[in-house]
Amino acid sequence: MTSPTTPQPPGRETPTIAQIAQELGVSVPTVSKVLNGRADVAEATRARIEAALERHQYRRRKAARPPEGTGLVDLVFHRLGSSWSMEIIRGVEDAAAENRVSVILSELGGEHRPPRAWLDATMLRPPVGVLMVASRLSPAQHRVLTRRSIPIVVIDTDGEPPQDVPTVGSDNWSGGLAATRHLLGLGHRRIAAISGPVDMLCSRARIDGFRSAHAEAGVAVDESLVRVGNFYVEAGYREGRTLLSLPERPTAIFAGSDMQALGVLRAAHELGLVVPDDVSVVGYDDLSLAEWAIPALTTVRQPLAEMGALATSMLMELVEGRTPPTRRINLATELVVRESTAPPPR
Amino acid sequence: MTSPTTPQPPGRETPTIAQIAQELGVSVPTVSKVLNGRADVAEATRARIEAALERHQYRRRKAARPPEGTGLVDLVFHRLGSSWSMEIIRGVEDAAAENRVSVILSELGGEHRPPRAWLDATMLRPPVGVLMVASRLSPAQHRVLTRRSIPIVVIDTDGEPPQDVPTVGSDNWSGGLAATRHLLGLGHRRIAAISGPVDMLCSRARIDGFRSAHAEAGVAVDESLVRVGNFYVEAGYREGRTLLSLPERPTAIFAGSDMQALGVLRAAHELGLVVPDDVSVVGYDDLSLAEWAIPALTTVRQPLAEMGALATSMLMELVEGRTPPTRRINLATELVVRESTAPPPR
Repeated sequence: MTSPTTPQPPGRETPTIAQIAQELGVSVPTVSKVLNGRADVAEATRARIEAALERHQYRRRKAARPPEGTGLVDLVFHRLGSSWSMEIIRGVEDAAAENRVSVILSELGGEHRPPRAWLDATMLRPPVGVLMVASRLSPAQHRVLTRRSIPIVVIDTDGEPPQDVPTVGSDNWSGGLAATRHLLGLGHRRIAAISGPVDMLCSRARIDGFRSAHAEAGVAVDESLVRVGNFYVEAGYREGRTLLSLPERPTAIFAGSDMQALGVLRAAHELGLVVPDDVSVVGYDDLSLAEWAIPALTTVRQPLAEMGALATSMLMELVEGRTPPTRRINLATELVVRESTAPPPR
Repeated sequence: MTSPTTPQPPGRETPTIAQIAQELGVSVPTVSKVLNGRADVAEATRARIEAALERHQYRRRKAARPPEGTGLVDLVFHRLGSSWSMEIIRGVEDAAAENRVSVILSELGGEHRPPRAWLDATMLRPPVGVLMVASRLSPAQHRVLTRRSIPIVVIDTDGEPPQDVPTVGSDNWSGGLAATRHLLGLGHRRIAAISGPVDMLCSRARIDGFRSAHAEAGVAVDESLVRVGNFYVEAGYREGRTLLSLPERPTAIFAGSDMQALGVLRAAHELGLVVPDDVSVVGYDDLSLAEWAIPALTTVRQPLAEMGALATSMLMELVEGRTPPTRRINLATELVVRESTAPPPR
């Protein structure tokens, strides 16, 4: 009786590295290098060792928990940027302190996949677990962690991680739906959207919610008003200027993130348009700056700190050898109506 | 020939813990506990051991550098907040990656002195060095790190750390001076200031620069216009509302931080005042949001990322056993004029 999430049936002994080395006629250090994802092994040898490790479903015997208070958790961002990252960090820090582990922070310079150097450094450390934000491991990197019994939890996944990797996100589709329903409800019929990067699932989900709200209201989406940004303020400014300079400009913009909404506010200001009298703007995230922008932003709140804290708690469950009751959690989002939205100009 | 910064003269052998224990007639574990700052030692015994450690100027023999890529640096914030912290973190991360060390991030929940639990956890780890932001160790905590040969560098110090602890900051006095000279130069004579917390040196330096600019221009400071905030947006809003509701309100406000400036913008907006036509506002920090606020903030740029990177490089010099050429570095600040300042209303 083997379930897909417990690859090693109870009672079956995993072979030692020495046994695998002997079976293949290679040295123990060579097997060890493959286990740790190191580069300096001939490709053919690596393939044979990989196959043997898979065949035996090799898992390093779980190391003893590090002494109380010395455990490390790696928190990996694809990019450390605005207060969006800071909100997640605060949630992770709080839950880590409760669990008496320390947080190692790193960023991947904008890449969604960690480079080899990251894995090498991590394996030397090694952490009790890894939290990845909007990024994920290659299958080979994932195998390295799995064989070392180092669990992973992904926050705000950029794609589909393996089945046994839990993810914590928020309900982006419902957020996009709520934002757009709000604008349609105010009477807007010509609504633009600026998405985040299309290689992030959360962006696509928000735009799909935007489309569904249109569909249920029987309003056609003007595809020329759906633009692609990157969640940062400059993209909001650039796309905002383009949209608001159209001969027949939109009466409302769903900006995809609060940072992009700030860029749209600036574009409107420079074009002499008043928000919300001439154009309504909706953000996404509810960063603290949303409340302090002028006009204060109507936005979709996603509970970033709670997402960070929950992901950390789930990770520590896995570290303790317990299986979290569910592996895909999306926390609820909530529309927060402030000053940047109003009925369209007559 | 002993200089104050090299407490242990070359050639003089530091005694071992065992020798100190024997000299005092206590056990080796008891000496070790005092060395690690642990609580469970009788006060009289602790005092005798502390005295002996001082007398012998005990320093643990420097541990071998941890294997390449496994070194840890502790980065300690009194509070993780806005993008102010994020800017510093990015500088530290960049320099840490160059030095192939990893960064452990922690915050002290707003306290400027770490609690005992922080030191206990840190000593179990232990890091190759410690970066403290706007916070510092008690003398006893400092001794624990010194005896373990773990160097410390303080970023944006809140006070006077010991002579042998390097600090990296920015020239806050000159920043306050430049901001106020700019307002005086525009013709303002009734200028308010909102400081940061008075227990932080950087706040006091900025306000002293504000006063000096007044003095050199022969303009008296109206003390009722100098208010105390905490660098956060809510304080700027609260003090801004108070100041702008005065019967004879100021024509300009030096807001002490960009976040406080955002709060002042909101207060002005709610009171129906237009910035800069009715009141000029100057921020401090030049966070990325300063450029995107409406109106864009005139502010004093302090190079937070560079401060983080420089502090990390200095720390790694100390870790390598080299002495940085100078122990007190303040990077230059720079006035950035944008849209939020103009001559006073006639």
